[in-house]
Amino acid sequence: MMQKMMKAVFYEGPNMLSIRETPIPEPAPGEALLRILYSGICGSDIHVYRGEHKRGKTGVILCHEFVGEIVTLPSTVCAELMVGCKVVAEPTLYCGRCEPCMTGSYNICASRGIYGIDQHGSLAEYMAVPVDKLYPVPEEVDSLQAALVEPLAVALHAAGLSGIQPGKNVLILGGGPIGALLAFVCRLGGVGCLVVSEINDYRSALLNKLGIITTNPLRENLSELIDKSVGKYGFDLVFEVAGLEATMLQATAAVKARGRIVIVSNPVKPLPFDLFEISNKELEVVGSRTYTSRNFHDAIRMLASGQLTVSGLISKVFPLSQADQAIKLAAEGKDTMKILVQS
Amino acid sequence: MMQKMMKAVFYEGPNMLSIRETPIPEPAPGEALLRILYSGICGSDIHVYRGEHKRGKTGVILCHEFVGEIVTLPSTVCAELMVGCKVVAEPTLYCGRCEPCMTGSYNICASRGIYGIDQHGSLAEYMAVPVDKLYPVPEEVDSLQAALVEPLAVALHAAGLSGIQPGKNVLILGGGPIGALLAFVCRLGGVGCLVVSEINDYRSALLNKLGIITTNPLRENLSELIDKSVGKYGFDLVFEVAGLEATMLQATAAVKARGRIVIVSNPVKPLPFDLFEISNKELEVVGSRTYTSRNFHDAIRMLASGQLTVSGLISKVFPLSQADQAIKLAAEGKDTMKILVQS
Amino acid sequence: MMQKMMKAVFYEGPNMLSIRETPIPEPAPGEALLRILYSGICGSDIHVYRGEHKRGKTGVILCHEFVGEIVTLPSTVCAELMVGCKVVAEPTLYCGRCEPCMTGSYNICASRGIYGIDQHGSLAEYMAVPVDKLYPVPEEVDSLQAALVEPLAVALHAAGLSGIQPGKNVLILGGGPIGALLAFVCRLGGVGCLVVSEINDYRSALLNKLGIITTNPLRENLSELIDKSVGKYGFDLVFEVAGLEATMLQATAAVKARGRIVIVSNPVKPLPFDLFEISNKELEVVGSRTYTSRNFHDAIRMLASGQLTVSGLISKVFPLSQADQAIKLAAEGKDTMKILVQS
Amino acid sequence: MMQKMMKAVFYEGPNMLSIRETPIPEPAPGEALLRILYSGICGSDIHVYRGEHKRGKTGVILCHEFVGEIVTLPSTVCAELMVGCKVVAEPTLYCGRCEPCMTGSYNICASRGIYGIDQHGSLAEYMAVPVDKLYPVPEEVDSLQAALVEPLAVALHAAGLSGIQPGKNVLILGGGPIGALLAFVCRLGGVGCLVVSEINDYRSALLNKLGIITTNPLRENLSELIDKSVGKYGFDLVFEVAGLEATMLQATAAVKARGRIVIVSNPVKPLPFDLFEISNKELEVVGSRTYTSRNFHDAIRMLASGQLTVSGLISKVFPLSQADQAIKLAAEGKDTMKILVQS
Repeated sequence: MMQKMMKAVFYEGPNMLSIRETPIPEPAPGEALLRILYSGICGSDIHVYRGEHKRGKTGVILCHEFVGEIVTLPSTVCAELMVGCKVVAEPTLYCGRCEPCMTGSYNICASRGIYGIDQHGSLAEYMAVPVDKLYPVPEEVDSLQAALVEPLAVALHAAGLSGIQPGKNVLILGGGPIGALLAFVCRLGGVGCLVVSEINDYRSALLNKLGIITTNPLRENLSELIDKSVGKYGFDLVFEVAGLEATMLQATAAVKARGRIVIVSNPVKPLPFDLFEISNKELEVVGSRTYTSRNFHDAIRMLASGQLTVSGLISKVFPLSQADQAIKLAAEGKDTMKILVQS
Repeated sequence: MMQKMMKAVFYEGPNMLSIRETPIPEPAPGEALLRILYSGICGSDIHVYRGEHKRGKTGVILCHEFVGEIVTLPSTVCAELMVGCKVVAEPTLYCGRCEPCMTGSYNICASRGIYGIDQHGSLAEYMAVPVDKLYPVPEEVDSLQAALVEPLAVALHAAGLSGIQPGKNVLILGGGPIGALLAFVCRLGGVGCLVVSEINDYRSALLNKLGIITTNPLRENLSELIDKSVGKYGFDLVFEVAGLEATMLQATAAVKARGRIVIVSNPVKPLPFDLFEISNKELEVVGSRTYTSRNFHDAIRMLASGQLTVSGLISKVFPLSQADQAIKLAAEGKDTMKILVQS
Repeated sequence: MMQKMMKAVFYEGPNMLSIRETPIPEPAPGEALLRILYSGICGSDIHVYRGEHKRGKTGVILCHEFVGEIVTLPSTVCAELMVGCKVVAEPTLYCGRCEPCMTGSYNICASRGIYGIDQHGSLAEYMAVPVDKLYPVPEEVDSLQAALVEPLAVALHAAGLSGIQPGKNVLILGGGPIGALLAFVCRLGGVGCLVVSEINDYRSALLNKLGIITTNPLRENLSELIDKSVGKYGFDLVFEVAGLEATMLQATAAVKARGRIVIVSNPVKPLPFDLFEISNKELEVVGSRTYTSRNFHDAIRMLASGQLTVSGLISKVFPLSQADQAIKLAAEGKDTMKILVQS
Repeated sequence: MMQKMMKAVFYEGPNMLSIRETPIPEPAPGEALLRILYSGICGSDIHVYRGEHKRGKTGVILCHEFVGEIVTLPSTVCAELMVGCKVVAEPTLYCGRCEPCMTGSYNICASRGIYGIDQHGSLAEYMAVPVDKLYPVPEEVDSLQAALVEPLAVALHAAGLSGIQPGKNVLILGGGPIGALLAFVCRLGGVGCLVVSEINDYRSALLNKLGIITTNPLRENLSELIDKSVGKYGFDLVFEVAGLEATMLQATAAVKARGRIVIVSNPVKPLPFDLFEISNKELEVVGSRTYTSRNFHDAIRMLASGQLTVSGLISKVFPLSQADQAIKLAAEGKDTMKILVQS
């Protein structure tokens, strides 16, 4: 029998993609076959595309943020998954046997991988995914928003490690998609003063339109911002989402004594960090890495209940045939927030 | 009436000290007059001496680590302080009104100061100190050990923030006086594997003699050390006490996923720090700054009960007349651990 | 010179009050004289009124929840307080020298007291209060809402100890004024499922009207509620605000494994508690006692910014001349939520 | 082929045991066959024996604390397990799929079971155990001490949740085997004042002989003990190990403001608990349930390194043929600490 074919977008080397026919994947035992609806372009896809990602391999279908529809299911599966269901998937690949996995932190598995880098991703018409990675998406969540469940789970995980609380004053360094989603989550969490620091004017304007206060550190002095926003002692909590030398130094300067900095970014090389302030102000710095299952459940529920609306962050949707343009535009990062590809 | 005079050691500018006569201080209301027995030379005294300390001022008597005897007391004072009592003092100067002070963290007071820099210190025959900074030292603690109560309180404060527990595996980066005291506290705390990383052979040999395992990172590879000591996942806990670029990078490399790094050092400028590992391994970094009252009480009790013995760390005791040699030797740092000056 | 007189409401013994003329208090150094606008009746006022409060003393003016206007000020005072200013006051009396006070927890001072019990309270036309207990109330907060700043601070303190986060599922046992304010704070904090358990139909109906879901444990089985609301594992977080035997047992039954119970109530005697579930589910139980300064600042800012609106909880406002009826009605607890007295 | 037979001790109903021949178990895939060396009698064995344990079933071989020798192994197994190896086993049975299991807390699995109650235990000559539950015991640990690895892991888990630290003052309510092991762990952890409260004179005397200070609450007043031991504010930390009404009330009375109580016992019914003190002193109460893998590793290492010696707690060793006497003696609890049975 001839295999059925689908279109898919492969990474072929630095700044090279190919969109070509490939066999529709045959689900392994325990896997569902999904028809992909939308994929989101993530920073790590751009790293792979540029040839900068350590684990990037040619011949792999990109993308790990996606929403799809179940086409086939294994014979035995829990009742909440049915053919035709709209689903999102937790794209982390983990060993299940290392110490972090054994203690419930599979997000930091010692041999962690992810779809779109270590296995074929979703930038295609179909994809096979183990059913235990799938989360049904209720009708109240439209497919565009569902494509943002994964980055929203990233923001929820970071917020969970931050200890946000009603009344806490929060600075978010970096107003790209993750920073913007974090701002939404912080606002939902009833924080006091909330400011996003971002130098991209398009992104600042979009955030302002969505009701988030921003500052441009190239134009506004950090200590003035602190004085104006929260008084002289600084922010209770700073999220570092940009991964830049400048933002790392801003983090320790902007946070108050005994405050907390959450590192959400993954800077590729060591950056100068003001460790004097760590001991001097007895700061806490905690790292946040992707998400675990609870974050996916919460993300879906918040979108379904209307507690959060994230569609305002979608700048543009490309068809699969223009996936290369989508990634190029995302890589430029100018005048865009989140970019989706429709399969 | 002619004022009584005493000898004292003044900072007179970079690498310049003067030992000269000065009036015995007149205690202000609420202050006791102490006859100083011993002062310890601390890293911050060396910073001042070299002209590197931001707040260093000429004409100030050095040193904040000391033990003395009460010569005069204010008329009303609690019963546990009496003329003739041996005492140590918490040397922190704080405002009592800033946010950290109001929430019990006067050790990180926004306008924190210390004897020997912001006010006259103990490198003299006499010193006036408010009675509420004094802690009586029981007979069981000899005066040499009592001179180490202050740096021991530093180690106890850092240990308190670290969450050491019986069985935890601990790496201490830096085996000077604070690192050595931390090693003693960790051993007292029943930790599992305990290693101090130190490149100074004198200090390593001294620590070995005192029963502490050391490694020299110039000779032993960090990943081999980890494999040999605690298996592949790394140490539960790393104390960074050296404040160097190399040790900062070792800290993130040596600690296991979800482990904790305690920054005890005060590096004068931003250092490269592997923030990727912070998020990748979801590490916690916490800063530790001096001590609070509980640490002083505990330090004295541990010495009095014999839980800890710290006299082995005292390399040499100089008379006050040779205080300049004491500081020069401490500044060299070679072939010495803790240096005291007898007043 | 004849002293000026005012009306005030004194506790005269179990179930006995007197409303009578008494000299307007003479402010001590550091105190402001306030003209009281509104006082709120609190559970502890009712305890005193009934003669059940350990520290209740006859001849004391009741009430510690209040808003007033500054009539006179000491000569030197910070710029934000001026004659004519509307202010609320932190009513805790504390020693400043015990261990909790020295570590920033003056709310659990070993010899803690409060206005209305240990010193004259606000159920009068005037009251003298140290200026360092005063918080200016911005114009955006009307006087009725300002009278609820103190109980709102109680709710914020409990929420702060609870670790509420967007998405967490919360059960509040007890829907009186504190439980209701906690529900508002939890809703502001973006929690997931939020249910208040309350047997008083008036209070349930009021909460429902204000958008809060309630359950009546006399009519709805707890395990059904859990199944329906949050699935079989139980709530992440339970606030116990009622202080009853039944609610204590519900708390351990309703919370999930590794969940947290916050005890906000102050039950007068030991109550049966399911300590088997504490170890079996490895629960955390934490106690919450009044508030500290940050909670007052946050409460005022949340009301001023419109993040919270609490006027819906005020059931009735009595004039000072009818203060006895106000307290009787509050003591009955039926068909009322918060009751205020206008001075 | 005729099955080989062994002797085993079965629970046959309240206060009834039978020691009889039964086939040596046939290891299932992934299981090792162990020749049992020693079993320890635990409180839960006594509960089963008395017919008081909810899950106790007749016809089940008792005991879950044991040390054995590997007789047969599955064909593929990790190199550290070999025929002839001395091993201990983590006896918890868990589902691996519930929320606690998925987050690393299989010790509080929603359908948790244990050998000796839910499956056949070790009070027999042989036992089949999955290899992934086995821990090799190094030669330095003699077999008698190895039999105490499991209860030592209980103590380590509780200590881990307690936050013990050098210098903290600790009260342990209950000086049976778990309380005694906790005292050893606390002493190893360098705590400050350490007192065990126990009314059984045999146990107190044994603990005193082993260097642990005890108090008898029937003879010594709790507040006197507090004053004498730690001053007026109370203990930093209290472990409740007895599960009695009296000890629960002592826990809240003896702990200082903002201190922590760890509930290690499993009282069968709700007990009066002073919840007023929970909120009044803002206490933390945390429950501790058995152990996880790390506690087993640490327990074995502490015994192997000589950090801990626990053989002093073994009061008597019975042969398997006298297992009924062993359990009766343990049930009496008088003049004994830990009782072992040699298979």
